[in-house]
Amino acid sequence: MTRLAGCPLCDGVGGVLVARTPKLRVIRAGEDATRFPAFYRVVWDDHVPEFSQLPRADRQHCMDAVVLVEEALRQHLRPHKVNLAALGNAVPHLHWHVIARYPWDSHFPAPVWAAPQRDVAVDRVRALADALPALERSISEALRRLAD
Amino acid sequence: MTRLAGCPLCDGVGGVLVARTPKLRVIRAGEDATRFPAFYRVVWDDHVPEFSQLPRADRQHCMDAVVLVEEALRQHLRPHKVNLAALGNAVPHLHWHVIARYPWDSHFPAPVWAAPQRDVAVDRVRALADALPALERSISEALRRLAD
Repeated sequence: MTRLAGCPLCDGVGGVLVARTPKLRVIRAGEDATRFPAFYRVVWDDHVPEFSQLPRADRQHCMDAVVLVEEALRQHLRPHKVNLAALGNAVPHLHWHVIARYPWDSHFPAPVWAAPQRDVAVDRVRALADALPALERSISEALRRLAD
Repeated sequence: MTRLAGCPLCDGVGGVLVARTPKLRVIRAGEDATRFPAFYRVVWDDHVPEFSQLPRADRQHCMDAVVLVEEALRQHLRPHKVNLAALGNAVPHLHWHVIARYPWDSHFPAPVWAAPQRDVAVDRVRALADALPALERSISEALRRLAD
């Protein structure tokens, strides 16, 4: 595996591990859970900065995993919109953000990285958080089928 | 073609048209050109909100186009990082942002949607803008090969 010393996504899992294939892992990003509990990342295991540096078959595998997480979010959480992003300015190790968004959330319709638009709706955030165990079982099962 | 009345990406091109295939188009997003001249979008022609709603072959075609734009940015502009995102909170019609980022840009390392970190480096922005015609010829040629 290609690793870069000092890279937080080479040195650690980067969040709560939900599932993995031999090439990538799905994690729940815990650092913003009070505002965005349904915030997942598909992290490529090898240290690769840019998506276009992956061979096409690996890109397809990566996006199949991103889509699988998006589909699970849509099925379990009925988001108003799903946000996908591979930025990597701070941590240039390929990872896709997959985030369930709602008109009531603190930032909607702005991206989660913009300024908040309103207070956090604590009860709605809690309801989402309650749905995560079933969601994550679905992600885990679907990723296992993808890896087969 | 699936169109939604009132959707700005169904009613118009959405920017400066760079190239197209029978299913998608690449546009330059002009609205933030004084800060991010190398800001492109791959817009799916049909009105589809979520990436996971596309069939797998269409998703692959879409990401092949995104990658082709990313590769052209890397080759012509040597960005420090490329940012990819499909958000669609404001305009829920599938479009991928593909943005060249640099440590000197007004927002780096924050996403372009976050608060600025510093003043715009006018000379560097102008140098990037000067490189866009050659870049866009490359994108156009590569997209034509993809569509063949």
